[in-house]
Amino acid sequence: MDNLKGKTVSLAHGAGGKQTSELIDQVFKAHFANPELTSDDAAVLKMKEGKIAFTTDGFIVSPSEFPGGNIGKLSICGTVNDLSCMGAKPLYLSCAFVIEEGFPMEKLEAIAAAMEKTAKEAGVKIVAGDTKVAGKGQVDGVFITTTGIGEIQEGVETSGFMAKPGDAVIVSGDIGRHGCTILLAREDFGIDADVTSDCAPLWGTVQDILSVTKDVHVIRDATRGGVGTVLYEIAEQSHTGIRLNAEEIPVQESVKGVCGMLGLEPLYLACEGRLVIFAPKENAEAIVAKLREGKYSTEAAIIGEVTEEMPGRVVVTTEIGAETLLPPPGGELLPRIC
Amino acid sequence: MDNLKGKTVSLAHGAGGKQTSELIDQVFKAHFANPELTSDDAAVLKMKEGKIAFTTDGFIVSPSEFPGGNIGKLSICGTVNDLSCMGAKPLYLSCAFVIEEGFPMEKLEAIAAAMEKTAKEAGVKIVAGDTKVAGKGQVDGVFITTTGIGEIQEGVETSGFMAKPGDAVIVSGDIGRHGCTILLAREDFGIDADVTSDCAPLWGTVQDILSVTKDVHVIRDATRGGVGTVLYEIAEQSHTGIRLNAEEIPVQESVKGVCGMLGLEPLYLACEGRLVIFAPKENAEAIVAKLREGKYSTEAAIIGEVTEEMPGRVVVTTEIGAETLLPPPGGELLPRIC
Repeated sequence: MDNLKGKTVSLAHGAGGKQTSELIDQVFKAHFANPELTSDDAAVLKMKEGKIAFTTDGFIVSPSEFPGGNIGKLSICGTVNDLSCMGAKPLYLSCAFVIEEGFPMEKLEAIAAAMEKTAKEAGVKIVAGDTKVAGKGQVDGVFITTTGIGEIQEGVETSGFMAKPGDAVIVSGDIGRHGCTILLAREDFGIDADVTSDCAPLWGTVQDILSVTKDVHVIRDATRGGVGTVLYEIAEQSHTGIRLNAEEIPVQESVKGVCGMLGLEPLYLACEGRLVIFAPKENAEAIVAKLREGKYSTEAAIIGEVTEEMPGRVVVTTEIGAETLLPPPGGELLPRIC
Repeated sequence: MDNLKGKTVSLAHGAGGKQTSELIDQVFKAHFANPELTSDDAAVLKMKEGKIAFTTDGFIVSPSEFPGGNIGKLSICGTVNDLSCMGAKPLYLSCAFVIEEGFPMEKLEAIAAAMEKTAKEAGVKIVAGDTKVAGKGQVDGVFITTTGIGEIQEGVETSGFMAKPGDAVIVSGDIGRHGCTILLAREDFGIDADVTSDCAPLWGTVQDILSVTKDVHVIRDATRGGVGTVLYEIAEQSHTGIRLNAEEIPVQESVKGVCGMLGLEPLYLACEGRLVIFAPKENAEAIVAKLREGKYSTEAAIIGEVTEEMPGRVVVTTEIGAETLLPPPGGELLPRIC
């Protein structure tokens, strides 16, 4: 067997023969090994009777390494967080790689190591995978698609259709850091800002919320499109209005600075470790208090409320008390952010 | 809402905002609609207690349309077949798209239509999806990753580790057609051969096998690397030898012709609708008889047997009675075949 250290990925590594097995054994199995990881066409998993959550997400972020993480960490967090938002304990993941010919083995190794570490933290097992290689210039670096299965916790039901007038709108931390980080990593604006991605696995954060109350109506992770897009989606799905207090929205000073210079709205910058939570007002303070004790949610805050008026719209009350409509999402935003 | 007919995919369609919703609604939801298809972060599915199969596969085939199918049909068949090989009734699929900026909406529509049709035939529901757009030249056309969940049937246990001396080796039809089709579609050899891909969903075929006996040791679909690679994998996993009868291996005349001209071994050409089955010899004739009644398995045949000698090797008895070692798989074979 060839040792792959110091080499690059070749088309033969994606052809399904001996070299594919070597790549899988030395890079992926070395990091993902667990009793359920399959060597057959599919993993065999024992399931209890009940409801599961099932979700998939493709990751094509550019650049694939950024302050605070890489595409490997992101690909685990993204799917773990989608399961968590449904109140589902993440159990199993699959991951499918499309790798560009010539991709350095060392970088692939770093991606797999980040996936291993994040999966471990999230308590989830990678049980099935796939590896394809595309010719030079036919894919940009590496794309990863992760798909997950989680066990929905008894008595929990969340959905974008369930927001109700009177609900408080909570965010689990300061917003816009992932989008800001990718923007700065990609473009040479000559801006010297200390921003790292908020990318994090959030099942622990959701457990904190559910330890306070299971009466939570919506949990969403604010990824592509940021908190603003998520709020507009929920307003539309639930036929309610949403009113935000601008001064309550937590945004890091450095992110505020970058947004000011570039004319960006932090509400439309992606997060990869932030939840938007809709829950009856009477429990909101307790949820925020609990969240502030958590590793990834020290800046949690109530940022607004759900209203009967203005269904489908998001209104912002500014620091000086004026009310403005948050411009609806649209246009390119920032592509290849996740 | 913009009508997308006649348009092309833009970066905005992958940014997670309004245009992404329009693409999803008009192209994907129009074809995949079912009660379980989620508008939240994950699909919610009711599961029975028992064993499930869980598998993922990325599809990057070039060209994305070929005689006998397109990447959409292929992406459903590939995952449905991996589940079927574990004796699992395919239930739910997710699909994640990465689309190149400028990809014609009409082609995307044709892909979605093929997915709908194939999923319907396979009895499987698409319940979750994801759409990303990469810039022109950052992905070649469209890549699709499908992930599936299936319910393993009571009393069925198949694995590449379970082949036993005395097992018959069966193929469910003539081999090498998908690989041959892609090769001809891609390269201009000036060969005028009438070959179409064997791409097909095979849960019905597996049901036929299981209706004869549940005592089946291995079922594998011979995709990348073809039947030869699958046989070497199983020989290694099960620590057995495999002896093939060259004259029993079904190969279409046109495929034989192309292979003869190009010096290719049909055993190493990909199939996308062919199973390799290992079952105790005494049931082999009955399995083949049943398979020959099936839509996708009229050319089923016993092509060899499992031996104690030569563990890890595949030996071929040629038409003139000579024994030769099948050259082990390796090298590039044909990239981007699936």
